[in-house]
Amino acid sequence: MSKTERVGVSLDSRLLSMFDELIAGQGYSNRSEAIRDLIRNRLSEERVAKPTTQAVAGVFLVYDHHSTELSGKLVDLQHSHLLQVIASTHVHLDHHNCLEVIMLRGRVREIEKVANSMAVLKGVKLSKVNIMTTGQDLG
Amino acid sequence: MSKTERVGVSLDSRLLSMFDELIAGQGYSNRSEAIRDLIRNRLSEERVAKPTTQAVAGVFLVYDHHSTELSGKLVDLQHSHLLQVIASTHVHLDHHNCLEVIMLRGRVREIEKVANSMAVLKGVKLSKVNIMTTGQDLG
Amino acid sequence: MSKTERVGVSLDSRLLSMFDELIAGQGYSNRSEAIRDLIRNRLSEERVAKPTTQAVAGVFLVYDHHSTELSGKLVDLQHSHLLQVIASTHVHLDHHNCLEVIMLRGRVREIEKVANSMAVLKGVKLSKVNIMTTGQDLG
Amino acid sequence: MSKTERVGVSLDSRLLSMFDELIAGQGYSNRSEAIRDLIRNRLSEERVAKPTTQAVAGVFLVYDHHSTELSGKLVDLQHSHLLQVIASTHVHLDHHNCLEVIMLRGRVREIEKVANSMAVLKGVKLSKVNIMTTGQDLG
Repeated sequence: MSKTERVGVSLDSRLLSMFDELIAGQGYSNRSEAIRDLIRNRLSEERVAKPTTQAVAGVFLVYDHHSTELSGKLVDLQHSHLLQVIASTHVHLDHHNCLEVIMLRGRVREIEKVANSMAVLKGVKLSKVNIMTTGQDLG
Repeated sequence: MSKTERVGVSLDSRLLSMFDELIAGQGYSNRSEAIRDLIRNRLSEERVAKPTTQAVAGVFLVYDHHSTELSGKLVDLQHSHLLQVIASTHVHLDHHNCLEVIMLRGRVREIEKVANSMAVLKGVKLSKVNIMTTGQDLG
Repeated sequence: MSKTERVGVSLDSRLLSMFDELIAGQGYSNRSEAIRDLIRNRLSEERVAKPTTQAVAGVFLVYDHHSTELSGKLVDLQHSHLLQVIASTHVHLDHHNCLEVIMLRGRVREIEKVANSMAVLKGVKLSKVNIMTTGQDLG
Repeated sequence: MSKTERVGVSLDSRLLSMFDELIAGQGYSNRSEAIRDLIRNRLSEERVAKPTTQAVAGVFLVYDHHSTELSGKLVDLQHSHLLQVIASTHVHLDHHNCLEVIMLRGRVREIEKVANSMAVLKGVKLSKVNIMTTGQDLG
Protein backbone atom coordinates (compact mmCIF):
# COMPACT_ATOMS: atom_id res chain seq x y z
CA MET A 1 0.00 0.00 0.00
CA SER A 2 1.11 3.47 -0.80
CA LYS A 3 1.84 6.02 1.89
CA THR A 4 1.31 9.76 2.08
CA GLU A 5 4.11 12.27 2.37
CA ARG A 6 3.94 15.89 3.35
CA VAL A 7 6.08 18.38 1.46
CA GLY A 8 6.59 22.09 2.05
CA VAL A 9 6.22 24.68 -0.69
CA SER A 10 7.39 28.28 -0.42
CA LEU A 11 5.05 30.78 -2.01
CA ASP A 12 4.83 34.51 -2.23
CA SER A 13 1.91 35.51 0.00
CA ARG A 14 0.07 37.36 -2.77
CA LEU A 15 0.43 34.42 -5.16
CA LEU A 16 -0.92 32.15 -2.44
CA SER A 17 -3.93 34.34 -1.74
CA MET A 18 -4.79 34.53 -5.45
CA PHE A 19 -4.52 30.77 -5.70
CA ASP A 20 -6.71 30.31 -2.62
CA GLU A 21 -9.31 32.59 -4.16
CA LEU A 22 -9.25 30.69 -7.46
CA ILE A 23 -9.65 27.26 -5.92
CA ALA A 24 -12.35 28.40 -3.49
CA GLY A 25 -14.29 29.66 -6.52
CA GLN A 26 -13.82 26.29 -8.19
CA GLY A 27 -15.15 24.51 -5.13
CA TYR A 28 -12.03 22.80 -3.80
CA SER A 29 -12.29 21.97 -0.16
CA ASN A 30 -8.55 22.23 0.45
CA ARG A 31 -5.30 23.42 -1.09
CA SER A 32 -3.56 20.02 -1.11
CA GLU A 33 -6.25 18.53 -3.35
CA ALA A 34 -5.98 21.46 -5.79
CA ILE A 35 -2.19 21.15 -5.97
CA ARG A 36 -2.43 17.37 -6.41
CA ASP A 37 -4.80 17.94 -9.35
CA LEU A 38 -2.30 20.35 -10.97
CA ILE A 39 0.45 17.76 -10.56
CA ARG A 40 -1.66 14.88 -11.90
CA ASN A 41 -2.76 16.90 -14.92
CA ARG A 42 0.83 17.87 -15.67
CA LEU A 43 1.96 14.25 -15.47
CA SER A 44 -0.93 13.10 -17.65
CA GLU A 45 -0.15 15.70 -20.34
CA GLU A 46 3.48 14.67 -20.32
CA ARG A 47 2.62 11.00 -20.73
CA VAL A 48 0.02 11.27 -23.44
CA ALA A 49 2.49 13.33 -25.48
CA LYS A 50 4.46 10.09 -25.94
CA PRO A 51 3.12 7.86 -28.74
CA THR A 52 3.82 4.64 -26.85
CA THR A 53 2.03 5.45 -23.59
CA GLN A 54 -0.84 3.16 -22.60
CA ALA A 55 -3.88 5.40 -22.32
CA VAL A 56 -7.67 5.53 -22.32
CA ALA A 57 -9.54 7.69 -24.75
CA GLY A 58 -12.93 8.76 -25.92
CA VAL A 59 -13.54 9.39 -29.59
CA PHE A 60 -16.50 11.75 -30.04
CA LEU A 61 -18.31 11.63 -33.32
CA VAL A 62 -21.28 13.73 -34.39
CA TYR A 63 -22.71 12.11 -37.47
CA ASP A 64 -25.74 11.80 -39.66
CA HIS A 65 -27.18 8.35 -39.10
CA HIS A 66 -28.91 8.51 -42.47
CA SER A 67 -25.46 8.06 -43.99
CA THR A 68 -26.22 4.58 -45.13
CA GLU A 69 -23.01 2.71 -44.64
CA LEU A 70 -21.47 4.71 -41.85
CA SER A 71 -22.58 2.66 -38.84
CA GLY A 72 -21.27 -0.52 -40.38
CA LYS A 73 -17.93 1.08 -41.17
CA LEU A 74 -17.62 2.41 -37.62
CA VAL A 75 -18.25 -1.02 -36.18
CA ASP A 76 -15.72 -2.55 -38.59
CA LEU A 77 -13.13 -0.01 -37.50
CA GLN A 78 -13.77 -0.79 -33.85
CA HIS A 79 -13.10 -4.45 -34.53
CA SER A 80 -10.17 -4.17 -36.88
CA HIS A 81 -7.66 -2.52 -34.59
CA LEU A 82 -5.22 -3.65 -32.01
CA LEU A 83 -6.96 -1.35 -29.64
CA GLN A 84 -9.31 -2.62 -27.06
CA VAL A 85 -12.68 -0.95 -27.56
CA ILE A 86 -14.09 -0.77 -24.07
CA ALA A 87 -17.53 0.64 -24.70
CA SER A 88 -19.48 2.75 -27.08
CA THR A 89 -22.43 4.95 -26.19
CA HIS A 90 -24.75 6.31 -28.80
CA VAL A 91 -27.26 9.11 -28.29
CA HIS A 92 -29.77 10.70 -30.61
CA LEU A 93 -29.42 14.46 -30.91
CA ASP A 94 -32.15 15.20 -33.41
CA HIS A 95 -33.83 13.64 -36.41
CA HIS A 96 -30.55 13.54 -38.36
CA ASN A 97 -27.67 13.70 -35.94
CA CYS A 98 -26.33 11.41 -33.32
CA LEU A 99 -23.40 11.59 -30.96
CA GLU A 100 -21.33 8.51 -30.38
CA VAL A 101 -18.59 8.23 -27.81
CA ILE A 102 -16.27 5.29 -28.36
CA MET A 103 -14.07 4.51 -25.41
CA LEU A 104 -10.76 2.91 -26.26
CA ARG A 105 -7.73 1.62 -24.49
CA GLY A 106 -4.32 1.28 -26.06
CA ARG A 107 -1.17 3.12 -27.04
CA VAL A 108 -1.54 6.82 -27.83
CA ARG A 109 -0.29 6.27 -31.37
CA GLU A 110 -2.91 3.61 -32.11
CA ILE A 111 -5.69 5.61 -30.49
CA GLU A 112 -4.88 8.58 -32.72
CA LYS A 113 -4.80 6.37 -35.78
CA VAL A 114 -8.19 4.80 -35.19
CA ALA A 115 -9.73 8.16 -34.19
CA ASN A 116 -8.47 9.64 -37.44
CA SER A 117 -9.79 6.79 -39.54
CA MET A 118 -13.23 7.40 -38.04
CA ALA A 119 -13.08 11.19 -38.46
CA VAL A 120 -12.55 11.03 -42.22
CA LEU A 121 -15.60 8.87 -42.95
CA LYS A 122 -18.28 10.46 -45.07
CA GLY A 123 -21.23 11.36 -42.85
CA VAL A 124 -19.08 12.18 -39.80
CA LYS A 125 -19.57 15.91 -39.33
CA LEU A 126 -17.48 16.60 -36.26
CA SER A 127 -14.98 14.55 -34.37
CA LYS A 128 -12.65 14.96 -31.46
CA VAL A 129 -10.49 12.63 -29.47
CA ASN A 130 -9.79 12.97 -25.79
CA ILE A 131 -6.79 11.02 -24.48
CA MET A 132 -5.92 10.52 -20.81
CA THR A 133 -3.64 8.34 -18.77
CA THR A 134 -5.22 5.45 -16.95
CA GLY A 135 -4.80 6.98 -13.54
CA GLN A 136 -2.68 4.11 -12.35
CA ASP A 137 -0.02 5.35 -9.95
CA LEU A 138 -1.44 8.86 -10.05
CA GLY A 139 -2.05 8.59 -6.32
CA MET B 1 -34.70 19.95 -47.58
CA SER B 2 -31.29 21.42 -48.00
CA LYS B 3 -29.56 21.62 -51.35
CA THR B 4 -25.92 21.34 -52.35
CA GLU B 5 -23.94 24.17 -53.90
CA ARG B 6 -20.66 24.04 -55.71
CA VAL B 7 -18.11 26.78 -55.04
CA GLY B 8 -14.76 27.42 -56.67
CA VAL B 9 -11.58 27.96 -54.66
CA SER B 10 -8.33 29.32 -56.11
CA LEU B 11 -5.25 27.67 -54.71
CA ASP B 12 -1.55 27.81 -55.39
CA SER B 13 -0.70 24.50 -57.09
CA ARG B 14 1.97 23.58 -54.52
CA LEU B 15 -0.37 24.30 -51.62
CA LEU B 16 -2.97 22.13 -53.29
CA SER B 17 -0.61 19.22 -53.82
CA MET B 18 0.53 19.35 -50.20
CA PHE B 19 -3.07 19.36 -49.06
CA ASP B 20 -3.91 16.44 -51.32
CA GLU B 21 -0.99 14.50 -49.88
CA LEU B 22 -2.08 15.25 -46.31
CA ILE B 23 -5.68 14.19 -46.79
CA ALA B 24 -4.76 11.08 -48.76
CA GLY B 25 -2.57 10.07 -45.80
CA GLN B 26 -5.52 10.65 -43.46
CA GLY B 27 -7.74 8.48 -45.60
CA TYR B 28 -10.12 11.00 -47.12
CA SER B 29 -11.70 9.77 -50.31
CA ASN B 30 -12.14 13.24 -51.78
CA ARG B 31 -11.11 16.86 -51.35
CA SER B 32 -14.61 18.26 -50.85
CA GLU B 33 -15.15 16.11 -47.77
CA ALA B 34 -11.82 17.23 -46.28
CA ILE B 35 -12.61 20.90 -46.87
CA ARG B 36 -16.12 20.47 -45.45
CA ASP B 37 -14.57 18.99 -42.30
CA LEU B 38 -12.24 21.98 -41.95
CA ILE B 39 -15.20 24.33 -42.28
CA ARG B 40 -17.39 22.40 -39.83
CA ASN B 41 -14.62 22.27 -37.24
CA ARG B 42 -14.01 25.99 -37.59
CA LEU B 43 -17.71 26.74 -37.14
CA SER B 44 -17.93 24.42 -34.14
CA GLU B 45 -14.91 26.05 -32.44
CA GLU B 46 -16.42 29.47 -33.01
CA ARG B 47 -19.74 28.45 -31.50
CA VAL B 48 -18.51 26.64 -28.44
CA ALA B 49 -16.42 29.72 -27.60
CA LYS B 50 -19.70 31.48 -26.78
CA PRO B 51 -21.04 30.69 -23.28
CA THR B 52 -24.68 30.65 -24.41
CA THR B 53 -24.36 28.15 -27.27
CA GLN B 54 -26.40 24.95 -26.97
CA ALA B 55 -23.88 22.12 -27.11
CA VAL B 56 -23.22 18.50 -26.30
CA ALA B 57 -20.33 17.47 -24.12
CA GLY B 58 -18.57 14.59 -22.52
CA VAL B 59 -17.05 14.97 -19.08
CA PHE B 60 -14.27 12.43 -18.61
CA LEU B 61 -13.39 11.48 -15.07
CA VAL B 62 -10.72 9.06 -13.94
CA TYR B 63 -11.39 8.32 -10.29
CA ASP B 64 -10.80 5.93 -7.48
CA HIS B 65 -14.04 4.12 -6.85
CA HIS B 66 -12.89 3.30 -3.34
CA SER B 67 -13.46 6.97 -2.54
CA THR B 68 -16.44 6.24 -0.41
CA GLU B 69 -18.80 9.06 -1.13
CA LEU B 70 -17.73 10.03 -4.61
CA SER B 71 -20.22 8.02 -6.68
CA GLY B 72 -23.13 9.40 -4.73
CA LYS B 73 -21.86 12.95 -5.13
CA LEU B 74 -21.43 12.48 -8.86
CA VAL B 75 -24.97 11.23 -9.21
CA ASP B 76 -26.25 14.15 -7.14
CA LEU B 77 -24.42 16.59 -9.39
CA GLN B 78 -25.88 14.99 -12.48
CA HIS B 79 -29.36 15.50 -11.08
CA SER B 80 -28.99 18.94 -9.59
CA HIS B 81 -28.25 20.92 -12.73
CA LEU B 82 -30.26 22.56 -15.41
CA LEU B 83 -28.32 20.49 -17.84
CA GLN B 84 -29.79 17.45 -19.42
CA VAL B 85 -27.60 14.46 -18.61
CA ILE B 86 -28.00 12.23 -21.62
CA ALA B 87 -26.05 9.20 -20.61
CA SER B 88 -23.19 8.07 -18.46
CA THR B 89 -20.87 5.18 -19.19
CA HIS B 90 -18.65 3.70 -16.55
CA VAL B 91 -15.71 1.37 -17.18
CA HIS B 92 -13.31 -0.34 -14.84
CA LEU B 93 -9.67 0.40 -15.58
CA ASP B 94 -8.00 -1.57 -12.80
CA HIS B 95 -8.61 -2.55 -9.21
CA HIS B 96 -8.72 1.08 -8.09
CA ASN B 97 -9.49 3.28 -11.04
CA CYS B 98 -12.50 3.74 -13.24
CA LEU B 99 -13.25 5.99 -16.16
CA GLU B 100 -16.64 7.59 -16.38
CA VAL B 101 -17.87 9.57 -19.36
CA ILE B 102 -20.91 11.69 -18.60
CA MET B 103 -22.64 13.01 -21.70
CA LEU B 104 -24.43 16.28 -21.23
CA ARG B 105 -26.49 18.66 -23.26
CA GLY B 106 -26.95 22.33 -22.47
CA ARG B 107 -25.39 25.75 -22.71
CA VAL B 108 -21.60 25.90 -22.82
CA ARG B 109 -21.51 27.95 -19.62
CA GLU B 110 -23.53 25.39 -17.68
CA ILE B 111 -21.58 22.47 -19.07
CA GLU B 112 -18.34 24.05 -17.90
CA LYS B 113 -19.79 24.71 -14.48
CA VAL B 114 -20.96 21.16 -13.88
CA ALA B 115 -17.74 19.71 -15.33
CA ASN B 116 -15.77 21.83 -12.93
CA SER B 117 -17.86 20.87 -9.92
CA MET B 118 -17.11 17.23 -10.72
CA ALA B 119 -13.40 17.79 -11.30
CA VAL B 120 -12.78 19.22 -7.85
CA LEU B 121 -14.27 16.30 -5.93
CA LYS B 122 -11.88 14.37 -3.74
CA GLY B 123 -11.11 11.02 -5.40
CA VAL B 124 -11.31 12.42 -8.94
CA LYS B 125 -7.75 12.11 -10.23
CA LEU B 126 -8.05 13.41 -13.75
CA SER B 127 -10.81 15.19 -15.58
CA LYS B 128 -11.38 16.75 -18.95
CA VAL B 129 -14.38 18.14 -20.72
CA ASN B 130 -14.97 17.93 -24.43
CA ILE B 131 -17.57 20.32 -25.84
CA MET B 132 -18.98 20.21 -29.37
CA THR B 133 -21.88 21.72 -31.24
CA THR B 134 -24.84 19.49 -31.87
CA GLY B 135 -24.18 19.17 -35.58
CA GLN B 136 -27.52 20.68 -36.44
CA ASP B 137 -27.26 22.73 -39.63
CA LEU B 138 -23.64 21.68 -40.10
CA GLY B 139 -24.65 20.11 -43.39
CA MET C 1 7.06 44.38 -0.08
CA SER C 2 5.66 40.92 -0.36
CA LYS C 3 6.55 38.12 2.02
CA THR C 4 6.99 34.41 1.52
CA GLU C 5 4.79 31.78 3.14
CA ARG C 6 5.37 28.09 3.51
CA VAL C 7 2.49 25.72 2.99
CA GLY C 8 2.30 21.96 3.43
CA VAL C 9 0.93 19.65 0.76
CA SER C 10 0.01 15.99 1.34
CA LEU C 11 0.91 13.73 -1.54
CA ASP C 12 0.87 10.05 -2.21
CA SER C 13 4.50 8.93 -2.19
CA ARG C 14 4.32 7.40 -5.69
CA LEU C 15 2.73 10.54 -7.12
CA LEU C 16 5.48 12.58 -5.51
CA SER C 17 8.27 10.44 -6.90
CA MET C 18 6.81 10.63 -10.42
CA PHE C 19 6.56 14.39 -10.12
CA ASP C 20 10.14 14.61 -8.86
CA GLU C 21 11.30 12.57 -11.83
CA LEU C 22 9.37 14.77 -14.28
CA ILE C 23 10.70 18.06 -12.96
CA ALA C 24 14.26 16.77 -12.66
CA GLY C 25 14.05 15.88 -16.35
CA GLN C 26 12.81 19.37 -17.14
CA GLY C 27 15.71 20.90 -15.25
CA TYR C 28 13.99 22.36 -12.22
CA SER C 29 16.34 22.84 -9.33
CA ASN C 30 13.64 22.42 -6.69
CA ARG C 31 10.08 21.29 -6.15
CA SER C 32 8.76 24.61 -4.85
CA GLU C 33 9.70 26.38 -8.08
CA ALA C 34 7.97 23.71 -10.16
CA ILE C 35 4.79 23.91 -8.09
CA ARG C 36 4.86 27.72 -8.22
CA ASP C 37 5.04 27.50 -12.03
CA LEU C 38 2.01 25.17 -12.11
CA ILE C 39 0.08 27.63 -9.95
CA ARG C 40 1.11 30.68 -11.99
CA ASN C 41 0.18 29.01 -15.26
CA ARG C 42 -3.20 28.00 -13.86
CA LEU C 43 -3.88 31.55 -12.69
CA SER C 44 -2.76 32.99 -16.03
CA GLU C 45 -5.02 30.63 -18.00
CA GLU C 46 -7.95 31.55 -15.77
CA ARG C 47 -7.39 35.26 -16.26
CA VAL C 48 -6.85 35.32 -19.99
CA ALA C 49 -10.12 33.39 -20.39
CA LYS C 50 -11.89 36.60 -19.32
CA PRO C 51 -12.34 39.12 -22.15
CA THR C 52 -11.73 42.13 -19.92
CA THR C 53 -8.39 41.06 -18.40
CA GLN C 54 -5.41 43.33 -19.05
CA ALA C 55 -2.84 41.19 -20.80
CA VAL C 56 0.22 41.17 -23.01
CA ALA C 57 0.28 39.30 -26.28
CA GLY C 58 2.32 38.48 -29.29
CA VAL C 59 0.68 38.22 -32.67
CA PHE C 60 2.76 35.99 -34.95
CA LEU C 61 2.33 36.47 -38.66
CA VAL C 62 4.08 34.60 -41.45
CA TYR C 63 3.49 36.56 -44.63
CA ASP C 64 4.70 37.17 -48.11
CA HIS C 65 6.31 40.59 -48.16
CA HIS C 66 5.75 40.81 -51.89
CA SER C 67 2.08 41.29 -51.10
CA THR C 68 2.14 44.89 -52.15
CA GLU C 69 -0.13 46.60 -49.71
CA LEU C 70 0.16 44.29 -46.74
CA SER C 71 2.88 46.08 -44.76
CA GLY C 72 1.02 49.35 -44.95
CA LYS C 73 -2.19 47.73 -43.79
CA LEU C 74 -0.44 46.05 -40.87
CA VAL C 75 1.03 49.37 -39.76
CA ASP C 76 -2.37 51.02 -40.09
CA LEU C 77 -3.94 48.32 -37.93
CA GLN C 78 -1.28 48.76 -35.28
CA HIS C 79 -2.11 52.45 -35.10
CA SER C 80 -5.86 52.30 -35.32
CA HIS C 81 -6.66 50.37 -32.18
CA LEU C 82 -7.13 51.17 -28.57
CA LEU C 83 -4.40 48.70 -27.87
CA GLN C 84 -0.93 49.79 -27.03
CA VAL C 85 1.46 48.28 -29.55
CA ILE C 86 4.62 47.82 -27.56
CA ALA C 87 7.01 46.58 -30.19
CA SER C 88 7.17 44.76 -33.45
CA THR C 89 10.01 42.58 -34.64
CA HIS C 90 10.35 41.55 -38.23
CA VAL C 91 12.62 38.80 -39.53
CA HIS C 92 13.27 37.52 -43.02
CA LEU C 93 12.70 33.79 -43.41
CA ASP C 94 13.45 33.38 -47.10
CA HIS C 95 13.13 35.29 -50.35
CA HIS C 96 9.34 35.47 -50.02
CA ASN C 97 8.37 34.97 -46.41
CA CYS C 98 8.85 36.97 -43.28
CA LEU C 99 7.83 36.45 -39.69
CA GLU C 100 6.58 39.40 -37.74
CA VAL C 101 5.85 39.35 -34.04
CA ILE C 102 3.74 42.26 -32.87
CA MET C 103 3.69 42.69 -29.11
CA LEU C 104 0.54 44.25 -27.76
CA ARG C 105 -0.87 45.27 -24.43
CA GLY C 106 -4.56 45.66 -23.67
CA ARG C 107 -7.72 43.82 -22.81
CA VAL C 108 -8.00 40.23 -24.03
CA ARG C 109 -11.06 41.06 -26.11
CA GLU C 110 -9.27 43.87 -27.97
CA ILE C 111 -6.13 41.82 -28.47
CA GLU C 112 -8.18 39.05 -30.10
CA LYS C 113 -9.94 41.55 -32.30
CA VAL C 114 -6.78 43.15 -33.64
CA ALA C 115 -5.06 39.76 -34.05
CA ASN C 116 -8.00 38.58 -36.08
CA SER C 117 -8.06 41.65 -38.29
CA MET C 118 -4.40 40.98 -39.12
CA ALA C 119 -4.91 37.27 -39.74
CA VAL C 120 -7.50 37.77 -42.46
CA LEU C 121 -5.37 40.09 -44.61
CA LYS C 122 -4.47 38.77 -48.03
CA GLY C 123 -0.81 37.77 -48.03
CA VAL C 124 -0.83 36.59 -44.41
CA LYS C 125 -0.25 32.85 -44.66
CA LEU C 126 -0.20 31.81 -41.04
CA SER C 127 -1.08 33.59 -37.85
CA LYS C 128 -1.31 32.82 -34.19
CA VAL C 129 -1.83 34.88 -31.10
CA ASN C 130 -0.28 34.17 -27.76
CA ILE C 131 -1.90 35.90 -24.78
CA MET C 132 -0.47 36.01 -21.26
CA THR C 133 -1.09 37.90 -18.08
CA THR C 134 1.35 40.66 -17.24
CA GLY C 135 2.96 38.78 -14.38
CA GLN C 136 2.01 41.47 -11.91
CA ASP C 137 1.23 39.92 -8.54
CA LEU C 138 2.21 36.48 -9.76
CA GLY C 139 4.93 36.46 -7.09
CA MET D 1 7.12 30.28 -60.44
CA SER D 2 4.06 28.65 -58.98
CA LYS D 3 0.72 28.67 -60.71
CA THR D 4 -2.81 28.92 -59.39
CA GLU D 5 -5.40 26.18 -59.75
CA ARG D 6 -9.12 26.38 -59.29
CA VAL D 7 -10.90 23.52 -57.54
CA GLY D 8 -14.59 22.94 -56.95
CA VAL D 9 -16.02 22.10 -53.55
CA SER D 10 -19.55 20.78 -52.96
CA LEU D 11 -21.20 22.19 -49.87
CA ASP D 12 -24.61 22.02 -48.30
CA SER D 13 -26.19 25.44 -48.85
CA ARG D 14 -26.84 26.03 -45.13
CA LEU D 15 -23.27 25.10 -44.21
CA LEU D 16 -22.05 27.50 -46.87
CA SER D 17 -24.20 30.37 -45.66
CA MET D 18 -23.02 29.87 -42.08
CA PHE D 19 -19.42 29.85 -43.24
CA ASP D 20 -19.98 33.01 -45.28
CA GLU D 21 -21.44 34.71 -42.24
CA LEU D 22 -18.51 33.65 -40.05
CA ILE D 23 -15.83 34.88 -42.43
CA ALA D 24 -17.64 38.12 -43.20
CA GLY D 25 -17.64 38.79 -39.45
CA GLN D 26 -13.91 38.06 -39.32
CA GLY D 27 -13.27 40.51 -42.14
CA TYR D 28 -12.31 38.19 -44.98
CA SER D 29 -12.82 39.77 -48.36
CA ASN D 30 -13.46 36.47 -50.12
CA ARG D 31 -14.16 32.80 -49.53
CA SER D 32 -11.06 31.45 -51.29
CA GLU D 33 -8.76 33.32 -48.92
CA ALA D 34 -10.64 31.97 -45.89
CA ILE D 35 -10.45 28.39 -47.17
CA ARG D 36 -6.76 28.79 -48.02
CA ASP D 37 -6.14 29.92 -44.43
CA LEU D 38 -7.93 26.82 -43.08
CA ILE D 39 -5.79 24.63 -45.30
CA ARG D 40 -2.52 26.38 -44.40
CA ASN D 41 -3.27 26.17 -40.67
CA ARG D 42 -4.08 22.47 -40.97
CA LEU D 43 -0.82 21.81 -42.83
CA SER D 44 1.16 23.85 -40.32
CA GLU D 45 -0.34 21.97 -37.34
CA GLU D 46 0.45 18.66 -39.01
CA ARG D 47 4.06 19.63 -39.61
CA VAL D 48 4.88 21.08 -36.24
CA ALA D 49 3.57 17.88 -34.65
CA LYS D 50 6.67 16.16 -36.06
CA PRO D 51 9.81 16.64 -33.94
CA THR D 52 12.12 16.93 -36.95
CA THR D 53 10.28 19.67 -38.86
CA GLN D 54 12.20 22.89 -39.49
CA ALA D 55 10.16 25.64 -37.87
CA VAL D 56 10.20 29.15 -36.47
CA ALA D 57 9.13 29.86 -32.95
CA GLY D 58 8.72 32.53 -30.36
CA VAL D 59 9.45 31.78 -26.74
CA PHE D 60 7.54 34.18 -24.50
CA LEU D 61 8.89 34.74 -21.03
CA VAL D 62 7.45 36.97 -18.34
CA TYR D 63 10.12 37.39 -15.70
CA ASP D 64 11.34 39.48 -12.85
CA HIS D 65 14.42 41.31 -14.05
CA HIS D 66 15.54 41.75 -10.46
CA SER D 67 16.33 38.04 -10.49
CA THR D 68 20.00 38.65 -10.43
CA GLU D 69 21.46 36.00 -12.64
CA LEU D 70 18.53 35.33 -14.92
CA SER D 71 19.42 37.60 -17.85
CA GLY D 72 22.89 36.13 -18.08
CA LYS D 73 21.52 32.60 -18.03
CA LEU D 74 19.00 33.41 -20.75
CA VAL D 75 21.72 34.81 -22.97
CA ASP D 76 23.87 31.74 -22.31
CA LEU D 77 21.02 29.46 -23.31
CA GLN D 78 20.47 31.40 -26.50
CA HIS D 79 24.10 30.89 -27.44
CA SER D 80 24.57 27.30 -26.35
CA HIS D 81 22.09 25.60 -28.64
CA LEU D 82 22.12 24.30 -32.14
CA LEU D 83 19.19 26.54 -32.77
CA GLN D 84 19.56 29.75 -34.62
CA VAL D 85 18.33 32.57 -32.41
CA ILE D 86 17.00 35.09 -34.87
CA ALA D 87 16.06 37.95 -32.64
CA SER D 88 15.03 38.77 -29.13
CA THR D 89 12.78 41.64 -28.10
CA HIS D 90 12.54 42.80 -24.53
CA VAL D 91 9.86 45.07 -23.13
CA HIS D 92 9.31 46.48 -19.67
CA LEU D 93 5.89 45.70 -18.23
CA ASP D 94 6.22 47.33 -14.83
CA HIS D 95 8.82 48.00 -12.18
CA HIS D 96 9.47 44.29 -11.68
CA ASN D 97 8.31 42.39 -14.72
CA CYS D 98 9.47 42.25 -18.28
CA LEU D 99 8.30 40.32 -21.31
CA GLU D 100 10.90 38.86 -23.60
CA VAL D 101 10.12 37.20 -26.90
CA ILE D 102 12.97 35.12 -28.26
CA MET D 103 12.54 34.15 -31.90
CA LEU D 104 14.19 30.90 -32.86
CA ARG D 105 14.63 28.79 -35.92
CA GLY D 106 15.36 25.08 -35.93
CA ARG D 107 13.83 21.67 -35.54
CA VAL D 108 10.68 21.39 -33.42
CA ARG D 109 12.40 19.04 -30.99
CA GLU D 110 15.25 21.46 -30.35
CA ILE D 111 12.94 24.45 -30.07
CA GLU D 112 10.94 22.67 -27.38
CA LYS D 113 14.09 21.73 -25.53
CA VAL D 114 15.49 25.23 -25.37
CA ALA D 115 12.05 26.72 -24.54
CA ASN D 116 11.79 24.30 -21.67
CA SER D 117 15.26 25.05 -20.36
CA MET D 118 14.30 28.73 -20.22
CA ALA D 119 10.91 28.09 -18.59
CA VAL D 120 12.36 26.32 -15.58
CA LEU D 121 14.78 29.09 -14.60
CA LYS D 122 14.14 30.74 -11.26
CA GLY D 123 12.67 34.19 -11.84
CA VAL D 124 10.74 33.16 -14.94
CA LYS D 125 7.09 33.47 -13.89
CA LEU D 126 5.28 32.51 -17.05
CA SER D 127 6.40 31.02 -20.30
CA LYS D 128 4.88 29.80 -23.49
CA VAL D 129 6.25 28.69 -26.81
CA ASN D 130 4.59 29.29 -30.13
CA ILE D 131 5.81 27.11 -33.01
CA MET D 132 4.93 27.63 -36.68
CA THR D 133 6.13 26.37 -40.02
CA THR D 134 8.24 28.75 -42.05
CA GLY D 135 5.56 29.42 -44.62
CA GLN D 136 7.73 28.09 -47.41
CA ASP D 137 5.59 26.37 -50.02
CA LEU D 138 2.42 27.35 -48.21
CA GLY D 139 1.37 29.27 -51.28
